[in-house]
Amino acid sequence: MQTIFVQFKCRPGRAYEVADRLVQEVEEISEVYSTSGHYDLIAKFYLADDQDIGHFVTERLQTADGIADTFTTVAFKAFGQG
Amino acid sequence: MQTIFVQFKCRPGRAYEVADRLVQEVEEISEVYSTSGHYDLIAKFYLADDQDIGHFVTERLQTADGIADTFTTVAFKAFGQG
Amino acid sequence: MQTIFVQFKCRPGRAYEVADRLVQEVEEISEVYSTSGHYDLIAKFYLADDQDIGHFVTERLQTADGIADTFTTVAFKAFGQG
Amino acid sequence: MQTIFVQFKCRPGRAYEVADRLVQEVEEISEVYSTSGHYDLIAKFYLADDQDIGHFVTERLQTADGIADTFTTVAFKAFGQG
Amino acid sequence: MQTIFVQFKCRPGRAYEVADRLVQEVEEISEVYSTSGHYDLIAKFYLADDQDIGHFVTERLQTADGIADTFTTVAFKAFGQG
Amino acid sequence: MQTIFVQFKCRPGRAYEVADRLVQEVEEISEVYSTSGHYDLIAKFYLADDQDIGHFVTERLQTADGIADTFTTVAFKAFGQG
Amino acid sequence: MQTIFVQFKCRPGRAYEVADRLVQEVEEISEVYSTSGHYDLIAKFYLADDQDIGHFVTERLQTADGIADTFTTVAFKAFGQG
Amino acid sequence: MQTIFVQFKCRPGRAYEVADRLVQEVEEISEVYSTSGHYDLIAKFYLADDQDIGHFVTERLQTADGIADTFTTVAFKAFGQG
Amino acid sequence: MQTIFVQFKCRPGRAYEVADRLVQEVEEISEVYSTSGHYDLIAKFYLADDQDIGHFVTERLQTADGIADTFTTVAFKAFGQG
Amino acid sequence: MQTIFVQFKCRPGRAYEVADRLVQEVEEISEVYSTSGHYDLIAKFYLADDQDIGHFVTERLQTADGIADTFTTVAFKAFGQG
Repeated sequence: MQTIFVQFKCRPGRAYEVADRLVQEVEEISEVYSTSGHYDLIAKFYLADDQDIGHFVTERLQTADGIADTFTTVAFKAFGQG
Repeated sequence: MQTIFVQFKCRPGRAYEVADRLVQEVEEISEVYSTSGHYDLIAKFYLADDQDIGHFVTERLQTADGIADTFTTVAFKAFGQG
Repeated sequence: MQTIFVQFKCRPGRAYEVADRLVQEVEEISEVYSTSGHYDLIAKFYLADDQDIGHFVTERLQTADGIADTFTTVAFKAFGQG
Repeated sequence: MQTIFVQFKCRPGRAYEVADRLVQEVEEISEVYSTSGHYDLIAKFYLADDQDIGHFVTERLQTADGIADTFTTVAFKAFGQG
Repeated sequence: MQTIFVQFKCRPGRAYEVADRLVQEVEEISEVYSTSGHYDLIAKFYLADDQDIGHFVTERLQTADGIADTFTTVAFKAFGQG
Repeated sequence: MQTIFVQFKCRPGRAYEVADRLVQEVEEISEVYSTSGHYDLIAKFYLADDQDIGHFVTERLQTADGIADTFTTVAFKAFGQG
Repeated sequence: MQTIFVQFKCRPGRAYEVADRLVQEVEEISEVYSTSGHYDLIAKFYLADDQDIGHFVTERLQTADGIADTFTTVAFKAFGQG
Repeated sequence: MQTIFVQFKCRPGRAYEVADRLVQEVEEISEVYSTSGHYDLIAKFYLADDQDIGHFVTERLQTADGIADTFTTVAFKAFGQG
Repeated sequence: MQTIFVQFKCRPGRAYEVADRLVQEVEEISEVYSTSGHYDLIAKFYLADDQDIGHFVTERLQTADGIADTFTTVAFKAFGQG
Repeated sequence: MQTIFVQFKCRPGRAYEVADRLVQEVEEISEVYSTSGHYDLIAKFYLADDQDIGHFVTERLQTADGIADTFTTVAFKAFGQG
């Protein structure tokens, strides 16, 4: 399994609409938060080992209406989740 | 009670209109200043403990006309306000 | 419960030592990953509602050896964790 | 009266010590918070109209031990504090 | 008297038109230069002690045609102008 | 197989010594170039599917003498290498 | 032979279309990846010694539909490709 | 004689058209290159001692079609051009 | 006559000592202010037409004790100083 | 022949010493200026076609005393130098 964090900058006033749609339509999603700082949302996704992360982000996430920019961080190893 | 600072970059020439509307329409507001530097306004808001900060910022602040961008800083603990 | 993400920039070569210690010594930790990009680690912490986030970050996290910088993001609301 | 916000980046692990000292030793302080994001603290100060802001920041704030950097924002006008 | 520096980023090719208009229409102006670097112009303004700096910048400067962005620096104290 | 690009900022004058050592001692390396811009070197590494990228970067690359900073970019999918 | 890396920021949702077209239409391409971080794609190109890199990037790459920005890094010397 | 470097960010795909026009129409130009990095072009201009650099950049360079942004660096003194 | 603005970042707590010394020892100084924002001081200098700006900044300003960094902006033309 | 621009950030007060030494000791140098902005110096170098640019910058330029940082820009094509 691959873990990625994606931060979203949304069009003004549309962050919750984006978050709702992510939860309803993207099954790989694990959690999504609205956040302090520059970005509006941070979401964590679990992808299958053979799933293409780049394709997932650009084709399935960026294409959603109301998203202005995304920043992808790959999480390499989970410590301490016993 | 939760305390947040929100900085606003407004459309050119519209900062005071935005500030006036914040004061009139957003009851959670404590104070708002125009400022030096990159942002036009800084405002402090007090939210109830069970109020959703993200929802407040994106649904009630960002939706106002004349706002180009917001930056949210959460204030964790107040010292010395005796 | 309060949720925060903390990103860590560590002294060169010490990120895993920092991560190990976080897992062993900080009971509020939920998960920690090494990551792509500028920061070495991202960790999620769950704090009690009356716990002081600022005190937690500066007194309990920043004081650990091997940490060069931290960046704290507060997560306001969790969507879709059913 | 003049109003300024000063953000503080402290040496790792020393933000609360700095905040405590500000509250005890700087009478112009109105409030101080630890915060999310890059800086550790944000404080608001009220200075007398004839008080020199630059002198205040560089001579009375920056000289305190444990402070790595400061960023000063001048607040021009208070709306809505009736 | 209050002293501020305002840096202007203008629409391409319009910096001199902006500068001319500032000189003709804004009596608080003391000097304006075109500059090297990111911004096109830097201007110094002297405002009366009871004049609202934020209002001045957002209502009287930013509203001018041809201005893309402004950055305001407040000058606290003048040394050595004997 | 996993592909990553790592950019290196080296201590002044030490980039080639670092590059030589990477080639001699890190078998996962595919290629390394000195580059224009902010960083001194860019290197591509192929890791086994079960290899921990974070561990590789922080324990095996950052620990080398002469390296001031690293920036890791994960490459998700290779197009057109027929 | 000259080696360059070009990073691409694409219009939202169009990175794979851009990557596919690069592979089909630009014979100088060696490899292209989608990536973590700010840019969507990184590609490596090998140009003939007498080929004009600037002309190649601005006339043959930037003109493609769906590209918002490019960043060119010249790779000076390859170590260790035995 | 005054020496300045101006860096140009052009609209995608138009850098060479801009460069050609600079060479043909701006007699003060000494040389122009396309470059690696963020900007597309760097040009050096020699102006007469009494020529207004700001006017030259904003009125004669920025007004050209296809230019998105400029950055001006003033060169103070030439060493070693014997 | 040539006009330049130089912004100074000083060692913590030393900005006023630097300002005082500039006023006493640098005859080309016209005015110096402490400022809001990232830098501690901004100063304006008038240099003779044949004076070397670069030499002035690096040899006569940067060598002063207590200065951490400088940023030089050349002012090309003064409007409206009648 | 290859053309590169290298920008130098020097230790405070040492830019002219660095410039002098570049002119005396580096035969590939064509010109060097002190400049406005963040960097202290910009220099242009002409290298032979088979000369390694990376080796030149890191081994022959960065090793000089008094240099804090360098930024290399490769110039691809000269227009208009007839």
